[in-house]
Amino acid sequence: MTDAAAVIERVRQRVDPTPAERRALAAAASRLTERAEAAIAELPVAADVVQVGSTARGTWVAGDRDIDLFVRFPSDLPREQLETYGTTVGAAVLPDGHEEYAEHPYVTGTFEGYAVDLVPCYDVAAATEIKSAVDRTPFHTTYLQERLDDDLAADVRLCKQFLKGIGVYGSDLRTQGFSGYLCELLVVEYGGFQAMLAAIEDWQPPVVIDPAAHQQASFDDPLVVVDPTDPERNVAAVVSAANVATVQHHARRFRATPSEDAFTPASPAPLDAAALRSHIDRRDTTPLAVVLDAPDVVADQLYPQLYRSRDGVVRGLREHGFDVVRAAAWADERAVVFVELASAELPAVERHVGPPVSVGTHAERFYETYADDDGVYGPFVDDDGRYVVERDRDVRTAGGFARTELGTVALGARIESRVASGDYDVYVGDAVVEALLPEFESELAAYVDPKA
Amino acid sequence: MTDAAAVIERVRQRVDPTPAERRALAAAASRLTERAEAAIAELPVAADVVQVGSTARGTWVAGDRDIDLFVRFPSDLPREQLETYGTTVGAAVLPDGHEEYAEHPYVTGTFEGYAVDLVPCYDVAAATEIKSAVDRTPFHTTYLQERLDDDLAADVRLCKQFLKGIGVYGSDLRTQGFSGYLCELLVVEYGGFQAMLAAIEDWQPPVVIDPAAHQQASFDDPLVVVDPTDPERNVAAVVSAANVATVQHHARRFRATPSEDAFTPASPAPLDAAALRSHIDRRDTTPLAVVLDAPDVVADQLYPQLYRSRDGVVRGLREHGFDVVRAAAWADERAVVFVELASAELPAVERHVGPPVSVGTHAERFYETYADDDGVYGPFVDDDGRYVVERDRDVRTAGGFARTELGTVALGARIESRVASGDYDVYVGDAVVEALLPEFESELAAYVDPKA
Repeated sequence: MTDAAAVIERVRQRVDPTPAERRALAAAASRLTERAEAAIAELPVAADVVQVGSTARGTWVAGDRDIDLFVRFPSDLPREQLETYGTTVGAAVLPDGHEEYAEHPYVTGTFEGYAVDLVPCYDVAAATEIKSAVDRTPFHTTYLQERLDDDLAADVRLCKQFLKGIGVYGSDLRTQGFSGYLCELLVVEYGGFQAMLAAIEDWQPPVVIDPAAHQQASFDDPLVVVDPTDPERNVAAVVSAANVATVQHHARRFRATPSEDAFTPASPAPLDAAALRSHIDRRDTTPLAVVLDAPDVVADQLYPQLYRSRDGVVRGLREHGFDVVRAAAWADERAVVFVELASAELPAVERHVGPPVSVGTHAERFYETYADDDGVYGPFVDDDGRYVVERDRDVRTAGGFARTELGTVALGARIESRVASGDYDVYVGDAVVEALLPEFESELAAYVDPKA
Repeated sequence: MTDAAAVIERVRQRVDPTPAERRALAAAASRLTERAEAAIAELPVAADVVQVGSTARGTWVAGDRDIDLFVRFPSDLPREQLETYGTTVGAAVLPDGHEEYAEHPYVTGTFEGYAVDLVPCYDVAAATEIKSAVDRTPFHTTYLQERLDDDLAADVRLCKQFLKGIGVYGSDLRTQGFSGYLCELLVVEYGGFQAMLAAIEDWQPPVVIDPAAHQQASFDDPLVVVDPTDPERNVAAVVSAANVATVQHHARRFRATPSEDAFTPASPAPLDAAALRSHIDRRDTTPLAVVLDAPDVVADQLYPQLYRSRDGVVRGLREHGFDVVRAAAWADERAVVFVELASAELPAVERHVGPPVSVGTHAERFYETYADDDGVYGPFVDDDGRYVVERDRDVRTAGGFARTELGTVALGARIESRVASGDYDVYVGDAVVEALLPEFESELAAYVDPKA
């Protein structure tokens, strides 16, 4: 047995559901389906019930206990009736469940220890004719059930555990990683887990995979996997360039040196204040933290806003002349944009480059603006033939920037409104340590020990 | 009379030679020519004497006292004989003169208070057939004498005085400005001084002027004036982009607000130590000076080497992460590269960006280099999918850079050899003041009051 095969065998012991687990899940799904069908029989319209998701396809990782049932109504049913009937069936199947709302309401609850979603959708002829996003899901299941045998399903489980282990599993907007459906498509596309790793190692982003050879739309993403059931959809749209690189890195590592490590999420020891101070001293940088109460929105809204804010703060600092070494953004009870700066203070003057002297009126206006200003050096002409002045900086410290200039940078909407009302704190240098610990001890531990 | 006409009238009073000055110069040139012809008569070959340069064309500025005589020998004369005969004639014409050497020897001396050059050259049929650079000069004179009337000659004088006043007159490699011949071509091309300023105001560099419509060679310079006597030569080749912009700036200024100022070189008051310290304090920057005894070479060799060294030092500092606000290079007894930095010290770590993870062997080698190095942070993957490490900086201070890293940057040859033998000094911060004053008091005065 090769090293890789031995590792994989051990991982399989962890991720393959036991026969008992399979039987129990199938029995529960079957009872739920019967309940739903009984409730449908009471309705004035016809509908059918389909099990979808990884438990329908046999690709779930041992211990996952999710059952997803979709109730398909005729496509000409008015939306309000679909919602009412869907809720009625849901309440009958999951009497202790509660309604949630995506594009339309669905019912979520527990049944015999399983987390169950019961989702109404339209029974359309093809995934391209869907009336709401959930209508597409049954087509995914049909497509995959036709292609996944037991071996490939087992390899999908390996793939999911691998991506979990390296931290890129999940299409939520915090992770920006790989969905379960995407794992399934990749394993099917390449014919197995190890073949997939071999292919990933050679990826040259942007990578385009088009299982059904639609060759229709074009996408501006580092990884494109065209949905075989919908030519206009990139299943990998949320996967970041960093996560594509991360999976390539670990594919190469695993193939060179097979190890179970890749299948086990890293859990760095939380960082205490002394250790954090020691890193700051050793790096001799200046940390800056902008801290606010986390806006009360779901993670898929919070993290894009937080990342946008981080990028906006970094861009703003750079535009003001600060040298940013690295930055991050985290959320818990509070949300934080953390920026590490080469230095906390800039000189009194800044170089302000104007237009080339040759551009006529525009150049003349720049010159006239500063010609009689005793507070600036210049205007003079630089080596490229542009006007330049050296003028006083408005903002000389990173803390000053964070206290007075955040309104000028692109922030997430809910963070922008807090900033506008002054509802945030700024910490610079050593003050960051007490401000962020212990709440962000894990995030800081990962920050000071960054690994591919 | 317009404002411009009134200003020009006053400048003409300063720059037009008086009739007496013209007569005296013509008489001196005539006597020199006669002496040369007498000396030629003694030689075993035929030759003629031509007066060239601005005094031959009537375009000299009042007070200039240069007479250039060229002795044209047959083009089949061996070079050694041309040199011998040239020196013989020179010695006869200027008994107190001495030999200098460009492409071949010539004689320079004084006669009745005039500075006289007596230069042997070949009498070739066209400027394109020249055997040495000086052979071209008589063709310039012929070309211009056919086109310059008294009015245009007067406008050439205005043009020269204007370019002197704004500091861009001279095709030497320190100034990188406009030669007298270039002034003459521009005034002829545009039909006068004011028409030339109007045209210059609208220049969109790169500017190509081709008086003889050769349309032959192409040049990679911000200003191209194709030599009407030689299609392969750009008369404006040494003019820097900054000087093209400077002349555009002053053309626009003069046309908007005519003033004699433009015709008068600026002479900033020298800077004393207290004033320099006050500027450094106000700007809150860190000055750095690399100082050495000026290499013993002519200015046209020294300044290119000095400018190259300045650019190399600036590039090297930037590559090491320093933020350069402005830089300059000066020479007197000593040569100095002066750099003004935003800060004198950098953090302990630097971001070192490697290849994209996708580039296979190259990426793998980068990863392996650092994977087991406890002294670095990372390798990790950045937002673009590249490997990154944060590693200790070799050089954390600007002074340290200047003391240990100058050997790694592009320097002028004679400066490089001094640096290689450690024959230079480095001053940082306040120490710069005592080190550079009073030798560079004028240069520093211009530095702290930079004007277009």
